[in-house]
This record gives sequence, C-alpha cells and structure tokens, in this order.
Amino acid sequence: MPTFEQKVRASFGRQSFMTTLGAKLVSVGQGSVEIRLPFSDALGQQNGFAHAGAITSILDSACGYAALSVAREGAEVLSVEFKVNLLAPAVGEAFIARATVKRAGKTLCVCAGDALAVSNGEEKLIATMLATMIYMNANKA
Amino acid sequence: MPTFEQKVRASFGRQSFMTTLGAKLVSVGQGSVEIRLPFSDALGQQNGFAHAGAITSILDSACGYAALSVAREGAEVLSVEFKVNLLAPAVGEAFIARATVKRAGKTLCVCAGDALAVSNGEEKLIATMLATMIYMNANKA
Amino acid sequence: MPTFEQKVRASFGRQSFMTTLGAKLVSVGQGSVEIRLPFSDALGQQNGFAHAGAITSILDSACGYAALSVAREGAEVLSVEFKVNLLAPAVGEAFIARATVKRAGKTLCVCAGDALAVSNGEEKLIATMLATMIYMNANKA
Amino acid sequence: MPTFEQKVRASFGRQSFMTTLGAKLVSVGQGSVEIRLPFSDALGQQNGFAHAGAITSILDSACGYAALSVAREGAEVLSVEFKVNLLAPAVGEAFIARATVKRAGKTLCVCAGDALAVSNGEEKLIATMLATMIYMNANKA
Repeated sequence: MPTFEQKVRASFGRQSFMTTLGAKLVSVGQGSVEIRLPFSDALGQQNGFAHAGAITSILDSACGYAALSVAREGAEVLSVEFKVNLLAPAVGEAFIARATVKRAGKTLCVCAGDALAVSNGEEKLIATMLATMIYMNANKA
Repeated sequence: MPTFEQKVRASFGRQSFMTTLGAKLVSVGQGSVEIRLPFSDALGQQNGFAHAGAITSILDSACGYAALSVAREGAEVLSVEFKVNLLAPAVGEAFIARATVKRAGKTLCVCAGDALAVSNGEEKLIATMLATMIYMNANKA
Repeated sequence: MPTFEQKVRASFGRQSFMTTLGAKLVSVGQGSVEIRLPFSDALGQQNGFAHAGAITSILDSACGYAALSVAREGAEVLSVEFKVNLLAPAVGEAFIARATVKRAGKTLCVCAGDALAVSNGEEKLIATMLATMIYMNANKA
Repeated sequence: MPTFEQKVRASFGRQSFMTTLGAKLVSVGQGSVEIRLPFSDALGQQNGFAHAGAITSILDSACGYAALSVAREGAEVLSVEFKVNLLAPAVGEAFIARATVKRAGKTLCVCAGDALAVSNGEEKLIATMLATMIYMNANKA
C-alpha cells in the first residue's frame, strides 16, 4: 500500500464519528478519496431520509482525506470551511462521497466532492461540496 | 406551548439522527432555535475533537427549525444548501447551535447560525453557518 | 440560432454591467455558457490583479445563463446565492468563465462554474463557483 | 488618522475596480469597514437592478479591508473564498457594504458582511456574505 494511502487509512481509523455513522473508506488515490455510508434508520431526518448532516460528514471527510493524500510529510489537515448543495433527497441503500483535489497549495487545499445515493445498483447525484482545507504541521496542530 | 414550537418539537422528535448524535432541542422562538449536543467520544475526528460534520449537523437542524418556526401552516422545510466556517477546534463538554432567520420569503428562507463550545460554563465561538432553506407543501414533499 | 441561445443572448445584452466590465458572451449551449472578459486596468485590485468581484461577476452571469438556457418558456432566473473559491491570482490577458448546470429542478437550478486566466494562449484555473439560481415567472419577477 | 485606517485607505485607493464601480470607502474601524456604492445604469443586470457581481464586489472589498484593519504590520490580505446570499433585488439610490471580522487567526481571517440598499434614507438588507481571507507577507505576496 502506498504511503499516502497508509496515512489516510490510519487517520480515518481514528475518526470515531465515521464508525458511529457506519462509514467505510472505499478507496484512496493521490488526490481522490471515496467513502461509503450504508443507510440506517439512525441517520434519519424528519421524513426518514438521511440527514443532510450525515451526508455532509462523509463529504467533509472525503474532501479532507483527498487533501491529506497529497500533503507533505508530517502535515495534518483541518477543515477551514465548506459549502454543500443538497440536490435531491438522500434516499437509498447507501451513500457514496467522492472527493478530489481541485488545487493544492502550500497552506490551503481546495477540494470538490459529490455525494451519490445508491439504489438497486444505480447511482444518483444527491449533493455536492466545495471545501477549503488547511495544512497544519503535525507538531503545531 | 405556542403552535410554532409544537411543530418544531414534533419534527425534531422525528429526526433520529439528532438522537443518534445525542442532541437536544433547547429552545424554540419565532425565528430562532437552539440545539445542544453534549460531547462524546462517538463524535470524534482524527484528533479527538468533535467532527465538523457533527457540528454542521446541529447547525443545519437549528437553521432548518428556525425556518420552520416562521413557516406557513402545512409547509415543510428542506435544506437547499449551507456554508460553514470552522473557526476553532470543537473542544468542549458540549456544543450549542444557535440559529436565526435572516430573511424569510414565500419560497426560500435564509438563516444564519453560530456554533459554540461550552467549557467550564464559558462559551467560545467555533463555527458559523449561512444556510438557504426551501418551503415545501407538506402534501407535495 | 436555437431559441434558448436567442433568449440568453437577448438577456445578456440587457446586462449593462457586463458591458461596463467589457465581458462578451462567447458560447451558449443547452446547460452551458462561456463568457470572456479581457483584462483591463479598470478591473484591478490593490496589486493590479483583476478584482475577485470582477471574476465573480462573470461566473455569476455564466451560471445564471446556464440556468436560463434550460429554463421553461417565460421563466426568468435570479441568483439565490453562490460561493466562490479564488484559487490563484487573476493574472492574464483575459479571463474565461465556463458554467454548467449541475441539476435543474422546477424551482431551483444548481450550477457550477470555473474561471480561467488566459496568458499566451494557455489557460489556468483561477476560481471556481457553486451557485443556486431560482426560476421566476416573467410576469411575477 | 490611526495607522490601520491609513493602511486600509491606501490599499483601497489602489483598487482601480472600486473607482470603476464608483465605490467609496465610508469608514474604517478596527475590524469593521463600510463601503458605499451609488447606483448607476452601468451596474445593471437584465432587469435594471444592480448586478449581484457589483454588490459582491463591494462586500468582498469590505470583508478584505476589515481583515486588513486588524492585520499585523506588513501583512497583505487576499480573498480565499466567499459565499453570498442575495436576499432581495438590489434596487436603490445607493448600496452599502458593512463588514466585520468574525475571527482573526494568524493565517486566516473570517469576516461577515451585509449589503443594504438605501432608498429615500431607508436601509434594506439585500445580501449577506461570509468570507475567508488569508494574510500574506507583503514581501511574499
């Protein structure tokens, strides 16, 4: 496994919130990350769809780890800000967040991510995120 | 209890994700809502702070319910989009999301929310949201 | 010229601010629009680069017209909100805003746009927008 | 005139785009800035209202200068990103952008700004911005 993937998988393993949600790290490329979240009743909003906050959580982690996958050695990633558009109700058996690095600078990294709902093997775009991440030195974070 | 508060409390009670997080609806005014989320290890990101997604989730619910508190009878609220700035690490015994309506139109409602971390009785601003909500007819949603 | 392009070109022609900036409508597809803005000293920020507001202006128009290009007959488009990330200094002979529709609903239309700087025939990504537009009936707007 | 105001006024004076728009720097506090933009036909969108890009431009400059007003000596400010909600049509004799610092860190500064339309001496909220600015060393910028 390449070093960048080890680093991302180790950090994801420390995110207890991803475990709480039931999210799994599917794949890690250099500058791209995919996270999968099976639907469960524990994630519901008032209509029984998955809560926008749950979808945002996997998008944020996917964006953050896309940024980490291209970070210098020893750098950590924190979310500065993100914006999410909810495009369709989060209805499905599972949700996928796919994020890629749009531009990585020395200090900041801008990432974009799409969330898809999976139903009967079909994917439907349900949300999209544009996020700014910051690189922090591990010893300063 | 005023009708608008009953409506908000009933809908919040159906959001299983708020229960999953451990969030409580503290107060409901006409155009303002406060939600409280005690910290727990289940909410952590890689450094043990609360995950930005957990903080965003209570901000989103607070903004949505601020919009619902001023909605016409029979209207439901869905999140169109939001943007969150994370201003400081989410470290504390509990987190509070306070949202208010910035402008309510016939179709859209724009809300702003701040998230605060509470430590030893002191509140610190840790995040801020600007959100757009849409009113849907209950029978169409 | 297809009807959707006529409609977009007619509306763009009424945007005096695009004329003030010196922006031109390059191309109009069904769900995609390109606008070009030659650099001039009149657009500068404090360092002489093009002001983020000028780049945002052509991105907003490009997103709005991408939404209009797929609108029902008689519908007008207004900007609900947008978020822009500035990725690199706006330095170049000209700037291009390319927007596409991400999802068009009955009421709202979400569009994404990239801004590029052109120097010696080379394009460089300098900004990206995620925008929400609303369809209004012409007789109600 | 305090040093921070001199610094802001000098930088604003170099923003040729503010001159192009006709915008004036009204007041500069430590962490707060107000800019005024008289309406003119040159600013119009397709309905004759002021273009969202013009309103965004003065909000961006107001946020950037609020950040600069609290910056360390020698630091410059660049816009990282911003999000704007357009709350009402930009109709009026003049527009005012009022921005304040929400949180200033060592590297980043988050600012919020409201835009108001002035008609017959009455102010109406028409837009709101949430922005992230970055401090750059003058000799590195």
